[in-house]
Amino acid sequence: MSNENSENSTAGAYVTSGQEFTRDANYIATRITRDGADGYPVEAGRYRLVVARACPWANRAIIVRRLLGLEDAISMGVCGPTHDRRSWTFDLDPGGVDPVLGIPRIQDAYFARFPDYPRGITVPAMVDVPTGQVVTNNYPQITLDFSTEWTEFHREGAPQLYPSHLRDEIDEVALRVFKDVNNGVYRCGFAGSQEAYERAYKRLFDAMDWLEERLTNQRFLVGDTITEADVRLFTTLARFDAVYHGHFKCNRQKLSEFPALWAYARDLFQTPGFGDTTDFDHIKKHYYVVHEDINPTQIVPAGPDLSNWLTPHHREQLGGRPFGDGTPPSPVRESERVPSEHNPL
Amino acid sequence: MSNENSENSTAGAYVTSGQEFTRDANYIATRITRDGADGYPVEAGRYRLVVARACPWANRAIIVRRLLGLEDAISMGVCGPTHDRRSWTFDLDPGGVDPVLGIPRIQDAYFARFPDYPRGITVPAMVDVPTGQVVTNNYPQITLDFSTEWTEFHREGAPQLYPSHLRDEIDEVALRVFKDVNNGVYRCGFAGSQEAYERAYKRLFDAMDWLEERLTNQRFLVGDTITEADVRLFTTLARFDAVYHGHFKCNRQKLSEFPALWAYARDLFQTPGFGDTTDFDHIKKHYYVVHEDINPTQIVPAGPDLSNWLTPHHREQLGGRPFGDGTPPSPVRESERVPSEHNPL
Repeated sequence: MSNENSENSTAGAYVTSGQEFTRDANYIATRITRDGADGYPVEAGRYRLVVARACPWANRAIIVRRLLGLEDAISMGVCGPTHDRRSWTFDLDPGGVDPVLGIPRIQDAYFARFPDYPRGITVPAMVDVPTGQVVTNNYPQITLDFSTEWTEFHREGAPQLYPSHLRDEIDEVALRVFKDVNNGVYRCGFAGSQEAYERAYKRLFDAMDWLEERLTNQRFLVGDTITEADVRLFTTLARFDAVYHGHFKCNRQKLSEFPALWAYARDLFQTPGFGDTTDFDHIKKHYYVVHEDINPTQIVPAGPDLSNWLTPHHREQLGGRPFGDGTPPSPVRESERVPSEHNPL
Repeated sequence: MSNENSENSTAGAYVTSGQEFTRDANYIATRITRDGADGYPVEAGRYRLVVARACPWANRAIIVRRLLGLEDAISMGVCGPTHDRRSWTFDLDPGGVDPVLGIPRIQDAYFARFPDYPRGITVPAMVDVPTGQVVTNNYPQITLDFSTEWTEFHREGAPQLYPSHLRDEIDEVALRVFKDVNNGVYRCGFAGSQEAYERAYKRLFDAMDWLEERLTNQRFLVGDTITEADVRLFTTLARFDAVYHGHFKCNRQKLSEFPALWAYARDLFQTPGFGDTTDFDHIKKHYYVVHEDINPTQIVPAGPDLSNWLTPHHREQLGGRPFGDGTPPSPVRESERVPSEHNPL
């Protein structure tokens, strides 16, 4: 879901002097459902998930699609890591055009449906391939709908990421994680005043301390298997030391200095679906190049050393069954692999 | 010795696009010596050392003055942490004027001697109080002269920081430390291109690895006591995690992730003269506020947590005698104390 702070993105500015960072949380609310109530029924081969590997909100959808085995039902278009104020482009594809949608920029799918679309052009976006129109960019609903509406296309052994009996707890945990952590890091980095920054920093690290405690004796955030709550936290943790610690000044300590949270993050990273969809090269390039107003030189740090993501985490000792009664997904298909030089796996 | 990159400071810019950072190494070469060969003889009460606690080059002079007990012979003026392109000011003093020199800016002492002084107005600077004229800002010579020319005013028990029989080795170590570490961090932070940054980063961390190895079985850099070489390395290490790691993108790892180097830094920090002259508040404010071209928001990070500087270092196990046949200095005099909220000591 970049452009972050999309209300400002047309000015190329992410920081508004003197102000707190406020995320525009108005997304296209259309849903793709089994009953097709919004005009878009679940249908294999009809929709394309457009992502950028750099983006934590899009990374959630990449992970959930893979964990559930939706690759054959929902194709995926991948934008490059950097973009100008007209948002994400298909610059990685031959000719700079998405091979299925035939467009150079994701904004083209937005404008195909809403010619005067006024808000941020964001990923992840689900696009209706026959019409070339965006269906939704409502990222928290997209992953939940993958779990609950696309069930007939789930692979055998797909995990229950949003099981009925745990939904209240998942929603509750995810809400604080969103406000103080997922979005909290942006509130630190895009704060327009010292005071706004310090408030965001305190909320972030209070929440990190709460997570550290919660995860000290518990392998996963909710229940004893991987859920949507873990997916949502993971994509922020994966970017923490690589970007947020320095670029967003989230620097009370590194993620790798939280014993439980760091072991938890590595446990997920080393689980199929998580680390194998993480592209550190895209992540670093995106933030350090796109946010010119906080990094005017656009120089991308060479560090940190990321090989530590592969060290033993010993979280098995806490019990838990990552996939519950299910099984891990098979290896990432060749065409969707993160280049090996972008990832220590 | 800020303004760093003084040739650019009049433009308020520290980074020159496309270029490597090159430090202007031309300082005022006049020396204060026992024989007064340059017209400035060693004389108690005649000279004022002007510093900023933020500045690593000035911090060296503060440390050496204190270790040698030169406080009564050489008074000290302290500039505030931030400044505009006209360089350091006495904004901490009542009325914004140095109480001894009667000037608001250190540039006034430069212009009193050289009306058209063309280079960077830097600290540390030794000023001749009777004339109000700067004598020298040649920081590497200032500390050596404290050790070798001001001997008659050394306190009882003053350490030998530049003993004759170790000078070649001290000079050799200090040269690499200067090029790759002291100045190396600036070469990372002020690099005008990705390539220049990556070259500086590699040199910096190669040198850090060399220091890590050297200090694994050896308590101090040269010999078995504190020397000038340790002073010179310390002031960069003290700023490493607080500033250089994030602000200058020196982020392969934190200093606190080098076992020997971090224990060495804490050993020095906990030794009278080192930590008690370190002002983390001034350090952070200086870099993050003054370098607008790499931190346009001027927001100062709240982290890192610096209480780790006080953890046990266990370096006594390597032997060594910090002060050799001498003794530690007595506590910092009241008027020169770093505010307790600026330092975890």
